[in-house]
Amino acid sequence: MNLTSSTSEASRPFLTWQRILDWAQEHYRYRTFSKDERIPTRDGLLYLVQKGAVRLVGTAQLSATTTKSKSEVSKPTTEETFLGFVGPGQPFEIVAQSPFTLGAYSHIDQTSVVWMYWNDLDNWPHFRREVLDAFRHQHQRKLLWLSTLGQRKTIDRLFGFITLLVEEFGEPTENGYCLPFPLTHAQIGSAIGSTRVTVTRLMGKLRQKGLIAIKEDNLICLPAKNN
Amino acid sequence: MNLTSSTSEASRPFLTWQRILDWAQEHYRYRTFSKDERIPTRDGLLYLVQKGAVRLVGTAQLSATTTKSKSEVSKPTTEETFLGFVGPGQPFEIVAQSPFTLGAYSHIDQTSVVWMYWNDLDNWPHFRREVLDAFRHQHQRKLLWLSTLGQRKTIDRLFGFITLLVEEFGEPTENGYCLPFPLTHAQIGSAIGSTRVTVTRLMGKLRQKGLIAIKEDNLICLPAKNN
Repeated sequence: MNLTSSTSEASRPFLTWQRILDWAQEHYRYRTFSKDERIPTRDGLLYLVQKGAVRLVGTAQLSATTTKSKSEVSKPTTEETFLGFVGPGQPFEIVAQSPFTLGAYSHIDQTSVVWMYWNDLDNWPHFRREVLDAFRHQHQRKLLWLSTLGQRKTIDRLFGFITLLVEEFGEPTENGYCLPFPLTHAQIGSAIGSTRVTVTRLMGKLRQKGLIAIKEDNLICLPAKNN
Repeated sequence: MNLTSSTSEASRPFLTWQRILDWAQEHYRYRTFSKDERIPTRDGLLYLVQKGAVRLVGTAQLSATTTKSKSEVSKPTTEETFLGFVGPGQPFEIVAQSPFTLGAYSHIDQTSVVWMYWNDLDNWPHFRREVLDAFRHQHQRKLLWLSTLGQRKTIDRLFGFITLLVEEFGEPTENGYCLPFPLTHAQIGSAIGSTRVTVTRLMGKLRQKGLIAIKEDNLICLPAKNN
């Protein structure tokens, strides 16, 4: 498993990362956010999570059902789709794209983010390559995510989604591998095209089957495999 | 719109691309595939589409429903999820990942692919950066794709999915922007978590509303906006 704990930035070449942090603080390119605070982003900027976790979301600006009556002012669907986490040491970027809008929130309290122009990375060519490789990796993960969302049964999508998230962000505990932060059933539903109510019901089924476990503080776990 | 026609490789610095092609042919790293032929891929290799189009697919190896009865040999779901196209001049890679398997097919006849180790790009540092930037772009597109798959109504997912595909691969025609190659309703269904039958019914609805059009040879189009 790919463990992204809150100290995983230590796995990066420490000196470069420390230099970037120093540079960011000196140039006021560093900010700490409280839980669920929206992170202001701009096209063309690169963001790096220093600690905590960032939640990416997407919003559809178009709908096949609301565009029907052109005379009314059709309200765009304002519900946000959960698109994944960005953990410590990981980059993200938000490119303005119609007909969908992407956004970022601080998922947990005390999440710190550094930002820069891509050109700023000219000072650290090796680090630039690491960032680009991180995006390559994120892209591969999203292809797996799309693979599970193509499954027809909601419970299969739910189980695939949880498996992928825990595989990427889970930390070892006595209950198996667990997500280090909570995720609401509404957020899960938004990702897999379902509702909070359905997610709650199907999570119960997955628990009964022993496929997932829930730790105190509502953390989702995959039990250690015993077969 | 980002037009990826069969001649879009000309938009790349021509000389580098030509040198890479020469190198690939000289080193037997070039092959042409017929329609729907599986492209053999290996972890750690980088693939570049020279002409035609590659179809990426994913297969779930796990299911919340078949793991129920452990005594039976549970057949893994063998249905493949359509994960998108890779057009001329674009890179792709297939990283081995459990519990999902990714794969690539030649989507149209006479699709040519070049492959190399990442190290081979040491000869063309500028081109390496282009490849990495292309993956960044593909990653952003997949986030939009995930945004639409989070929509609850199948018709919204279908319309969002078609909009994103045509936006990326569409070519201008008198019918608006059209995909340059067909996509079956079963393939569309596999991407949006629905069935061939439902896709056929909802495509009819979208046509009735004038949100999409179908050209001869079954090509999907977004009509030019006239409002």
